[in-house]
Amino acid sequence: MPDAIDLNTAASKDVTNQAPVVGVIMGSSSDWDVMQHATAVLDAFDIAYEARVVSAHRMPHDMVEYGATAAARGLRAIIAGAGGAAHLPGMMAALTEVPVFGVPVPSKYLRGEDSLLSIVQMPKGVPVATFAIGEAGAANAALHLIANLATTNPVLREKLIQYRTKQTEAARSMKVPQ
Amino acid sequence: MPDAIDLNTAASKDVTNQAPVVGVIMGSSSDWDVMQHATAVLDAFDIAYEARVVSAHRMPHDMVEYGATAAARGLRAIIAGAGGAAHLPGMMAALTEVPVFGVPVPSKYLRGEDSLLSIVQMPKGVPVATFAIGEAGAANAALHLIANLATTNPVLREKLIQYRTKQTEAARSMKVPQ
Amino acid sequence: MPDAIDLNTAASKDVTNQAPVVGVIMGSSSDWDVMQHATAVLDAFDIAYEARVVSAHRMPHDMVEYGATAAARGLRAIIAGAGGAAHLPGMMAALTEVPVFGVPVPSKYLRGEDSLLSIVQMPKGVPVATFAIGEAGAANAALHLIANLATTNPVLREKLIQYRTKQTEAARSMKVPQ
Amino acid sequence: MPDAIDLNTAASKDVTNQAPVVGVIMGSSSDWDVMQHATAVLDAFDIAYEARVVSAHRMPHDMVEYGATAAARGLRAIIAGAGGAAHLPGMMAALTEVPVFGVPVPSKYLRGEDSLLSIVQMPKGVPVATFAIGEAGAANAALHLIANLATTNPVLREKLIQYRTKQTEAARSMKVPQ
Amino acid sequence: MPDAIDLNTAASKDVTNQAPVVGVIMGSSSDWDVMQHATAVLDAFDIAYEARVVSAHRMPHDMVEYGATAAARGLRAIIAGAGGAAHLPGMMAALTEVPVFGVPVPSKYLRGEDSLLSIVQMPKGVPVATFAIGEAGAANAALHLIANLATTNPVLREKLIQYRTKQTEAARSMKVPQ
Amino acid sequence: MPDAIDLNTAASKDVTNQAPVVGVIMGSSSDWDVMQHATAVLDAFDIAYEARVVSAHRMPHDMVEYGATAAARGLRAIIAGAGGAAHLPGMMAALTEVPVFGVPVPSKYLRGEDSLLSIVQMPKGVPVATFAIGEAGAANAALHLIANLATTNPVLREKLIQYRTKQTEAARSMKVPQ
Amino acid sequence: MPDAIDLNTAASKDVTNQAPVVGVIMGSSSDWDVMQHATAVLDAFDIAYEARVVSAHRMPHDMVEYGATAAARGLRAIIAGAGGAAHLPGMMAALTEVPVFGVPVPSKYLRGEDSLLSIVQMPKGVPVATFAIGEAGAANAALHLIANLATTNPVLREKLIQYRTKQTEAARSMKVPQ
Amino acid sequence: MPDAIDLNTAASKDVTNQAPVVGVIMGSSSDWDVMQHATAVLDAFDIAYEARVVSAHRMPHDMVEYGATAAARGLRAIIAGAGGAAHLPGMMAALTEVPVFGVPVPSKYLRGEDSLLSIVQMPKGVPVATFAIGEAGAANAALHLIANLATTNPVLREKLIQYRTKQTEAARSMKVPQ
Repeated sequence: MPDAIDLNTAASKDVTNQAPVVGVIMGSSSDWDVMQHATAVLDAFDIAYEARVVSAHRMPHDMVEYGATAAARGLRAIIAGAGGAAHLPGMMAALTEVPVFGVPVPSKYLRGEDSLLSIVQMPKGVPVATFAIGEAGAANAALHLIANLATTNPVLREKLIQYRTKQTEAARSMKVPQ
Repeated sequence: MPDAIDLNTAASKDVTNQAPVVGVIMGSSSDWDVMQHATAVLDAFDIAYEARVVSAHRMPHDMVEYGATAAARGLRAIIAGAGGAAHLPGMMAALTEVPVFGVPVPSKYLRGEDSLLSIVQMPKGVPVATFAIGEAGAANAALHLIANLATTNPVLREKLIQYRTKQTEAARSMKVPQ
Repeated sequence: MPDAIDLNTAASKDVTNQAPVVGVIMGSSSDWDVMQHATAVLDAFDIAYEARVVSAHRMPHDMVEYGATAAARGLRAIIAGAGGAAHLPGMMAALTEVPVFGVPVPSKYLRGEDSLLSIVQMPKGVPVATFAIGEAGAANAALHLIANLATTNPVLREKLIQYRTKQTEAARSMKVPQ
Repeated sequence: MPDAIDLNTAASKDVTNQAPVVGVIMGSSSDWDVMQHATAVLDAFDIAYEARVVSAHRMPHDMVEYGATAAARGLRAIIAGAGGAAHLPGMMAALTEVPVFGVPVPSKYLRGEDSLLSIVQMPKGVPVATFAIGEAGAANAALHLIANLATTNPVLREKLIQYRTKQTEAARSMKVPQ
Repeated sequence: MPDAIDLNTAASKDVTNQAPVVGVIMGSSSDWDVMQHATAVLDAFDIAYEARVVSAHRMPHDMVEYGATAAARGLRAIIAGAGGAAHLPGMMAALTEVPVFGVPVPSKYLRGEDSLLSIVQMPKGVPVATFAIGEAGAANAALHLIANLATTNPVLREKLIQYRTKQTEAARSMKVPQ
Repeated sequence: MPDAIDLNTAASKDVTNQAPVVGVIMGSSSDWDVMQHATAVLDAFDIAYEARVVSAHRMPHDMVEYGATAAARGLRAIIAGAGGAAHLPGMMAALTEVPVFGVPVPSKYLRGEDSLLSIVQMPKGVPVATFAIGEAGAANAALHLIANLATTNPVLREKLIQYRTKQTEAARSMKVPQ
Repeated sequence: MPDAIDLNTAASKDVTNQAPVVGVIMGSSSDWDVMQHATAVLDAFDIAYEARVVSAHRMPHDMVEYGATAAARGLRAIIAGAGGAAHLPGMMAALTEVPVFGVPVPSKYLRGEDSLLSIVQMPKGVPVATFAIGEAGAANAALHLIANLATTNPVLREKLIQYRTKQTEAARSMKVPQ
Repeated sequence: MPDAIDLNTAASKDVTNQAPVVGVIMGSSSDWDVMQHATAVLDAFDIAYEARVVSAHRMPHDMVEYGATAAARGLRAIIAGAGGAAHLPGMMAALTEVPVFGVPVPSKYLRGEDSLLSIVQMPKGVPVATFAIGEAGAANAALHLIANLATTNPVLREKLIQYRTKQTEAARSMKVPQ
């Protein structure tokens, strides 16, 4: 089961020469401000990933190719972010059995309400796991796929538990001015 | 200019053996209740069309193929209807330079608000002409493409003007109970 | 068929002395910030157009006149932008058989949600092809009408395909910081 | 001041031969279910009115004519109801200085949210007095214009005060099961 | 009919010593930024008015008193502006037969959507004429009541027609950069 | 502290001759379908209450009187339900220092979204405790005021704890078909 | 009845050594900007309170503990503020019979619409008294619980009446520029 | 790696005596109509699951216990459905590192808009993978977790690919009446 081995390795510190196990794709380079919150989490967990622009609307054939080769290239999860009429996550879910995690990028006038509905309201049979609009959603897409990977990877699971513990401690140490 | 000739012919009464100049596609056969309002208009104008299910999410490769061959097959317009996270119109617009006319099909819980935003909020560069949610939108998608075709087809333009005149007369003859 | 000839000419470089084939109208000069994204596209395609303020609410008779003469003056498409209770696109569609392409201009408090619904929710029989709120919508209205004109104009079609190819290449060359 | 005299007469019981002082117009005969709540109030106050279909989108020239002659024909108020992309009230306000009272008729999928925004969000300079979506709004449009007429018509003012008193008494007599 | 006389006088240039015919009230002094667009219109038409804060929630008894004396004090219209859970216009409509013109003041987080619904969705029997959110709505409330007053005041009517003509000319003179 | 004694008595079985400690008011008898879910809870806790129609818009002076006498009559809480432009809860909160618990009654076309915003978005200084749209909100308004009363009434607190325990047990016994 | 005594004391000037009767909790220290409007009101009324971060999502066990001990520690009310998917108020209401007053904190992209719905739409049986989005809601949550406490505390009731009187006077003294 | 073995077994036909690998929980038995679309998918894939009511609001301690023991009991995914102020999915995500898949159950008046926002808008650090409102979302939650499990389970992956292929074929065979 090479996937599991890759991933164990992925969970080690040095990920520079590894094949990515997660694809982080977005509709435009302008989405990076939001989507870097996903890769920051992946970095924190030493998950090997690739990040690139794959525009559903301006590069549809690249998108199809990306979906067609995702599983064979060893991707075990795809994080897809897009804004407005956000089709990239749903189309990627149509193109590969690799699970897709969608991030609604805020749009200029409707603040991501359009992005959210375009991503989450998928028809029966073709799921996109959808997260909050913007930065929180990008980070959480990464955390959720890590939680999935962690169910068969004890090292990663340990790291996730530590991450959550640290997060609890950070919240506990928050003070309000008195 | 064979297109114009085809279309003139299309505008004649007998369209049974003609190559379609309009593709009417929808995400599911359940969209037919709405989308038949588009084909009814095309029928009324003797425009040769084809109508079929092309699901963006369940048949993405067929969708790509449909887009790739649309122009070569002589289509001069595509009417695409879909509901919820409605990606078919926008993806078709990404896949072909043939103009796409999108119809937001009402969704079960959000009554088409999701469909509308998923279709109309396309990014710069890949337009979908969007119409009202539901039956009115389906009919109007057909009427709008006919108006476009009519700009170079005097026969069709005459029919359109007659259609509009008849419509005005029908409205004028409406009475309210007194 | 002088229209087709005009348009071929329109697709040539020098458009200064040509009769416009597209009317770009808007409810107020304050809409220009958005609507210039439509004329920029028309410029890029060497389509002869005219751009002017035609307020549905403050100049209703000019609007009626504009609609009444549109076809005779050789217009083959009208791009109409308006915000708030945006009636210009729909009224123009009522006044002429020339196809109307509507652009919802963002409004001060509701960010264009009112503009969008006022434009897109037209009743059966009087279609307005509607595009995204704001700049993207303005550009796309122009691109869509070009796609319609291109179905009978090989020169224009070639330009459109080149435009789309360049757009794909621009998206492909987008990098995210790594 | 013949207007005031007309209206006093209008406020008398026999209105059959009177020139209407109120125009009740609507976009389609299907709006009647809602709009009859306006005429019922006018009937109750013996205000002479006319009720007819004037479709902004299917009869734009009739609409222009209606607006152009409204003042000269003695109309002192226009109640205009429409649904969806509801342009009739706003266009009528553009076409005449006679005050316009707008009624958002519920739409099939968006329940009148589109109608409301299309009517109420008028730009500075061209007001439409807007009322609630549906039956309540239709009745209130009539009541509001009566309140305006009543400011210069003591008979009508007395009737309005009686109407309100009766209404208060009806509310006071409402019982909840105990 | 002293009202008509008052108003004719009101329409003269010198209004300083006149009894107000319009009450402009608002829920807080912070609403003034918006509501001054109503008084600016009244100033332009030389309509005598009073402007003051009458908070429905913090001064309910003053509000009741204001409503109870409005007609007797000679008010022929009340413009009421409020934001959020905006109850002032509707309560004023409950308290006096003088017609009420409501202005939805933009709220901090919901941009006036709450204000609009709180004002426009009045139950049958107690109408508030509602206008657009914010500045445009404030100006239009004033213009609409002037249109009502003008139906029995030829001087005012003449001014209103001039105002509209000037407005049309201003729109006609708008240029877009070419 | 007679209040506490009253309330202890209120919490006994026989409440028929007691002065009410809770006023349940609503804008119309048509609100009873929803509001009876509040009185059913009060019945279950043997809280003496009165239930009546007090329309803010059709009976504003009765409403003022109700507010003015609420405290003196021994009311310790007021549950106010209304729909649409729902002003009753907020106005009652303006009229008395007795705490007001607001219930958004579903409206015909906007399903209570207008009611909710009209009730909850009160300005600083005049609070209305707001609950869910419809039946759940009515019941919860009663439960919340009981929780407040229970903080100084051990008998009532014991009943509330039992009510919650029973509710937990009922949920625990829910089965899904397997 | 030590609670009542505590509260009387709480209503005295010196609250520094008192056990808190109100818990003010929030999901993050970033909510403090809004929530301090609640504690400012409590300060103004000399109500002893505690203010701390209790994150439902990052400190769920602390939250459970907080709820489990709230009544025993003498809390008579809990003000809970949270934004986005705001679960803290509703979960606290599930965990203790002490009444919970919820404050929707504005969220980054949806401006608190998500916060509001997540807090107010509680199911039957587990009420959260909900107030306006943001600062006004925070202040009003405190004022409402004070109104509840005041029903059995004459000193507090007197203070509340004075607070409201002062507020009325402040509103009365508001002037608009003339 | 016992998890993988369990799951392989889970993927076999006979699941009756197996420990569940998926927990399907919902806030009320009334959610079953929707949530059975999740278990139907799990049945189709022979995934061992348990389905039960765990109300966040009425059984908070059971919910905590459920979360605390989920990982140890071998659950590798939790599907949580709830409506209105839907806190179950988010709280479960706070209570366990096992990944949570949230299903917005349609609510009575807001049709699931409240449910959706309450589930999807989770803060950074505590993700809930969210799916469409209603039946489609329930089925897709199950399909998405299967896609995750399939990344390390070749048998399951094969079934998933077959499921998708069959789905594509079903869509391809859809006909529209001609």
